[in-house]
Amino acid sequence: YGRADRSGETFGTALDKIGYRGPEKCGDHKLSAFFEVHIEQGPYLEAEGKDIGVVTGVQAMRWYEVTVTGQDTHAGTTPMPRRRDALVGAARLVETVNASAKRYSGAVGTVGLLEVKPGSPNVVPGEVYFTIDMRDPNPAVLDGMEGDVTVAAKKLESELGLQIALKNIWMQPPTAFNADCIAAVREGARVSGFSTRDMISGAGHDAAYVSRVAPAAMIFVPCKDGISHNEAEFSSKEQCAAGAQVLLQAVLDYDRRLAERDGK
Amino acid sequence: YGRADRSGETFGTALDKIGYRGPEKCGDHKLSAFFEVHIEQGPYLEAEGKDIGVVTGVQAMRWYEVTVTGQDTHAGTTPMPRRRDALVGAARLVETVNASAKRYSGAVGTVGLLEVKPGSPNVVPGEVYFTIDMRDPNPAVLDGMEGDVTVAAKKLESELGLQIALKNIWMQPPTAFNADCIAAVREGARVSGFSTRDMISGAGHDAAYVSRVAPAAMIFVPCKDGISHNEAEFSSKEQCAAGAQVLLQAVLDYDRRLAERDGK
Repeated sequence: YGRADRSGETFGTALDKIGYRGPEKCGDHKLSAFFEVHIEQGPYLEAEGKDIGVVTGVQAMRWYEVTVTGQDTHAGTTPMPRRRDALVGAARLVETVNASAKRYSGAVGTVGLLEVKPGSPNVVPGEVYFTIDMRDPNPAVLDGMEGDVTVAAKKLESELGLQIALKNIWMQPPTAFNADCIAAVREGARVSGFSTRDMISGAGHDAAYVSRVAPAAMIFVPCKDGISHNEAEFSSKEQCAAGAQVLLQAVLDYDRRLAERDGK
Repeated sequence: YGRADRSGETFGTALDKIGYRGPEKCGDHKLSAFFEVHIEQGPYLEAEGKDIGVVTGVQAMRWYEVTVTGQDTHAGTTPMPRRRDALVGAARLVETVNASAKRYSGAVGTVGLLEVKPGSPNVVPGEVYFTIDMRDPNPAVLDGMEGDVTVAAKKLESELGLQIALKNIWMQPPTAFNADCIAAVREGARVSGFSTRDMISGAGHDAAYVSRVAPAAMIFVPCKDGISHNEAEFSSKEQCAAGAQVLLQAVLDYDRRLAERDGK
């Protein structure tokens, strides 16, 4: 409840505002298992013509906040060699993040939010704030990417006369879903007559968090061109129905497994 | 009056709002000559220990607006080879502007304003808007820099699957100040006992516009570390007083020149 966003508002206050701060303590509501259907948000199912993704886990993720500090000064009168241009430094780090992710096949690295101060056409930028999102199933790859960015930042500090603060604000280890839940999803797809592909989720999902307190797994359906977080995001009714069908069969199958185990 | 800013407000409306749209037609008020004192906003006078800059003209300037369009999509699930990341393209153009200005000794090139859409840590940016400010005394150098940016943009469009729109929104030719006015400034400094250095202004100034309708020149005084457009901007009282003294002597000298010419 005490965690604050960039404007200083805490999570607790935000929940109060919308009337969502309930009386129940987190974890009091026990779950026997958790299954989640989602669009893939990526291109693999569509590209390979598979109906259902059997999600075996979620890749590791790390978020960073970077502040590059130089000096804002007049764009018309400040000779190039005397500049400490925070945006030139930030631009090279955007390139570093992109190049580093490409070096590790399967990894992704993104600068999604970037803000320039003071933000005027005729002022050399004195400060740039940006975020980095890095993901890979293997945390060692993320260590490598973080190393690439750290080395580049150190080099740019001396080359361009900048200060660069790199702060890790979120570190999510890889999630491995429950073996019985995964088996139930695979069986649910089989009895429904759908083709499958095992996969690791690139995005974080509710199931990744619930898996810390209960057995969990996920079911993916294809989406058009792998596009998500965009108005063009699309899965057909048939694709969604297939996901719902597998969800039903997976829950039934998991229930049978529990009953057999308990000897009922 | 009809020229609109990015929010759609016209210059005429903005003048009305603050009560500054007067009844007099632009140009009706005739000027015999115009002298302007200003801080240098650059490092040369201080570095060379000179008291006064005799400003002989203003360098050429061009402003551009650039829009880079890619596709916003999920940062966790979109593989690197499938991305059309507008910020990666923009970052490379920031680097191009910087490198191009450095290639031409004396030129400056700046990206001062840059905005990323949609601007979320876990979304690959689909659109980036930024400005370019280029200046050099020689317009041919600006042609060369514009060429560098155009070639780089064309290359990035195909390499990264982006659309890049480069629009020139302002094109100021170099300004040469009036020879008599310049001579009056030089003489004003001499009779006041100040050392001088001829220079071209890097920044635009009122005198550059007035010079289109009346003889004009400028007087520069040093400023600390050449810093401007920053709270650290500083010139001492003594430096400012020297500028005012030269302004007075320049006006008197120019007046004498006019009187001599008119045979009075």
